[in-house]
Amino acid sequence: MDRAATAAPGADRLAGSALGLPVAVPSTALFTDRYELTMLQAALRSGAAHRRSVFEVFTRRLPEGRRYGVVAGTGRVLDAIENFRFDDDVLSFLSRENVVDRDTLDWLAGYRFRGDVHGYPEGEVYFPGSPLLRVEGTFAEGVLLETVILSILNHDSAVAAAASRMAVAAGGRPLIEMGARRTHELGAVAAARAAYVGGFTTTSDLAAGFRYHIPTVGTSAHAFTLLHDTERDAFTAQVESLGPGTTLLVDTYDLTEAVRTAVEVAGPGLGAVRIDSGDLLLLAHRVRQQLDDLGATDTKIVVTSDLDEYAIASLAAAPVDAYGVGTSLVTGSGHPTCSMVYKLVARAADGTDGRPDAPLVPVAKKSLGAKASTGGRKWAARRLDADGVAEAEVVGTGPVPEELAGRQLLVPLIERGEVVAREPLDAARRRHIAARAGLPLSATQLSRGEPVIPTEFV
Amino acid sequence: MDRAATAAPGADRLAGSALGLPVAVPSTALFTDRYELTMLQAALRSGAAHRRSVFEVFTRRLPEGRRYGVVAGTGRVLDAIENFRFDDDVLSFLSRENVVDRDTLDWLAGYRFRGDVHGYPEGEVYFPGSPLLRVEGTFAEGVLLETVILSILNHDSAVAAAASRMAVAAGGRPLIEMGARRTHELGAVAAARAAYVGGFTTTSDLAAGFRYHIPTVGTSAHAFTLLHDTERDAFTAQVESLGPGTTLLVDTYDLTEAVRTAVEVAGPGLGAVRIDSGDLLLLAHRVRQQLDDLGATDTKIVVTSDLDEYAIASLAAAPVDAYGVGTSLVTGSGHPTCSMVYKLVARAADGTDGRPDAPLVPVAKKSLGAKASTGGRKWAARRLDADGVAEAEVVGTGPVPEELAGRQLLVPLIERGEVVAREPLDAARRRHIAARAGLPLSATQLSRGEPVIPTEFV
Repeated sequence: MDRAATAAPGADRLAGSALGLPVAVPSTALFTDRYELTMLQAALRSGAAHRRSVFEVFTRRLPEGRRYGVVAGTGRVLDAIENFRFDDDVLSFLSRENVVDRDTLDWLAGYRFRGDVHGYPEGEVYFPGSPLLRVEGTFAEGVLLETVILSILNHDSAVAAAASRMAVAAGGRPLIEMGARRTHELGAVAAARAAYVGGFTTTSDLAAGFRYHIPTVGTSAHAFTLLHDTERDAFTAQVESLGPGTTLLVDTYDLTEAVRTAVEVAGPGLGAVRIDSGDLLLLAHRVRQQLDDLGATDTKIVVTSDLDEYAIASLAAAPVDAYGVGTSLVTGSGHPTCSMVYKLVARAADGTDGRPDAPLVPVAKKSLGAKASTGGRKWAARRLDADGVAEAEVVGTGPVPEELAGRQLLVPLIERGEVVAREPLDAARRRHIAARAGLPLSATQLSRGEPVIPTEFV
Repeated sequence: MDRAATAAPGADRLAGSALGLPVAVPSTALFTDRYELTMLQAALRSGAAHRRSVFEVFTRRLPEGRRYGVVAGTGRVLDAIENFRFDDDVLSFLSRENVVDRDTLDWLAGYRFRGDVHGYPEGEVYFPGSPLLRVEGTFAEGVLLETVILSILNHDSAVAAAASRMAVAAGGRPLIEMGARRTHELGAVAAARAAYVGGFTTTSDLAAGFRYHIPTVGTSAHAFTLLHDTERDAFTAQVESLGPGTTLLVDTYDLTEAVRTAVEVAGPGLGAVRIDSGDLLLLAHRVRQQLDDLGATDTKIVVTSDLDEYAIASLAAAPVDAYGVGTSLVTGSGHPTCSMVYKLVARAADGTDGRPDAPLVPVAKKSLGAKASTGGRKWAARRLDADGVAEAEVVGTGPVPEELAGRQLLVPLIERGEVVAREPLDAARRRHIAARAGLPLSATQLSRGEPVIPTEFV
């Protein structure tokens, strides 16, 4: 944890980069859907572009059966907004493709976000209708940020939610993120970050270690055993090079034989064995017994092999010391994206264009079906019961009731264009543990159910 | 299409970059799991690192119910391998974190892949057991590439497979990729590319247009209508700025009213209207009738709103001119990753270390359950029936039967470290259409079923 706790200076040093890349990226402005720029052009022409506007990110529902959501990616959003600039390469592309006209290109050349952003801090839990992020400025400033904000929050929060459920299922045992090979190579870096926020301990992904100072770990692959003429040769090579504290992979040929060889080669001080196939519950018991019989009582057992939160929970009574999770983690355990949207909820009234103190008119799509939304600039607070346990997510547009004033969820993230809420990743990780602990106990049931607290609109 | 067809020169210019980034990345070497480097260290120490080795990428099964898979990401893999270098920043990170020892760092400093890669060309279809990619070189050279190759192929092929099914369902109508906001911001760029390979026509993602020359398009959002005092103001602003050929979003308030206003403002030459909510089948018919009644017979109807291949198919008889697809596309329509693995299948025999002509020994994990695999360096060919329709995916390790020699699927991609198979993205797109057309008709049924042809191991 210490390394991750010291991430802040590194993050600051890399503040000019963005997006969890192992290298700097000069701009995030291309992570934008074309219509945002054409809407900007039309609004610049009509003058409405300068109307004071409020956009909010929220989701209409949690993934089916989930009890709570987890906000992740906030730190990446701040980087993305800070680096959202239209440099010459981007402008000449937009010009060459006739995306927007000359006046709009000129406006974009001077763009930087100068408004305010409030949001749920990273690691906080959320529910349907929670106003997770609020962007205030002119319409022009805010409309451009829709895609990049949603990309980051939808992806990272999906992974963090899965990670949180797995962390609950693991009950304190370490969780290793090893999903890089199952998702986009840079999505993987963000996924490792989100998994850490959600409660994972380490990652196998070196890029995530490089970029976010998340502790990296590794074991060995079947290829290494198969490369050598015998399993004993492979174990000997590994132990000679990496020391007896290494983790030996014991399921390439015969498991019992491999465990015996492993302890013979490394001695009873062998660090760990990894089991990557078969009935893990049965095999963990069998291997533990064998290790103990061989005197390797401190040798740990790491299990991997398509684990998800249910498989992890089913191993609660097994002598397992750590879980490695890949596919189901980085794909959000059945829900690879959240359904967060970014909506204009209020804007300046007619005739007030450009005045920063202009009164706001709440706006909302009125149309058919489930896509209607609630207009107005919102606050949110979590109401507690007499025992201090969360009992409702309260969302409102009017004044904040006095009894909820101290329980507000939105905090300042950007003020007049300046990021004011950078923090080490461990702060988000700790905040998530505290936020989850403040929910009713049924929040951590893995079984399907309704959101664990209702959202009340006042 | 023309722009995409001219992607090759641009791609060449950007060959020093990688991964579908809008900017150059100096190295892909950090997209690596830590254990690959520690295995390298142990194998360098034992000497086995220099054994000639063959790694293959394959999948044991298709996602449940799918009839075929689609290879995508090959071009990105070639970029990633070409740029896989350990520069000073990376080496000092590895040293600081004690990932590997000094000898290994020295070896990594000189690393570049000098072996051979063969693979199914991009856009080709595949089946369980198809050897999609074969990497040959020393163990040390090949073992390092596991994670980055799998990340790219697993992600991109998942999106391309979904795109292909949607393209079949759309039956020739244009498909717009608009999923950027639902996935990681750089995953989105790769997703737009894979969707194009799988049959999509355009993308909303400007970064994908910038990087891969995929044509970009856009419409308008509810925010633009809500920003203005009336829907008429909004439509007028859009048409004045973007011309009557623009696409107006007509479901913010009352659909019928909006369509009437749209044609009044833009005239009967209005380009298109977009419907983003409600019963699209019913509404498309109603809007078409209304547009025709208003004389706007050439105005097109674009539909969006959580479409997947089934929803697209259900609109086959509706007067819809284009589909915009987001979430389900970029998340692989229920299968956000493929289950491709990268396995050592053969390596030099004992005592032949380092000899490039060393005879190969087939190797494979022998362990429990479904994870056993087939050893040996493989060829693959698609056998056709008398009508020229594919009837089996034939995979073998011995000599290629004479009648299949002309039907082989693996082509050279990298020879002695040099990329030999760069191609414009449109070549992969055309190849996919041809490959799919060569399958039995039931391949394009959306209903669940077995792989449309069996894989025969000989």
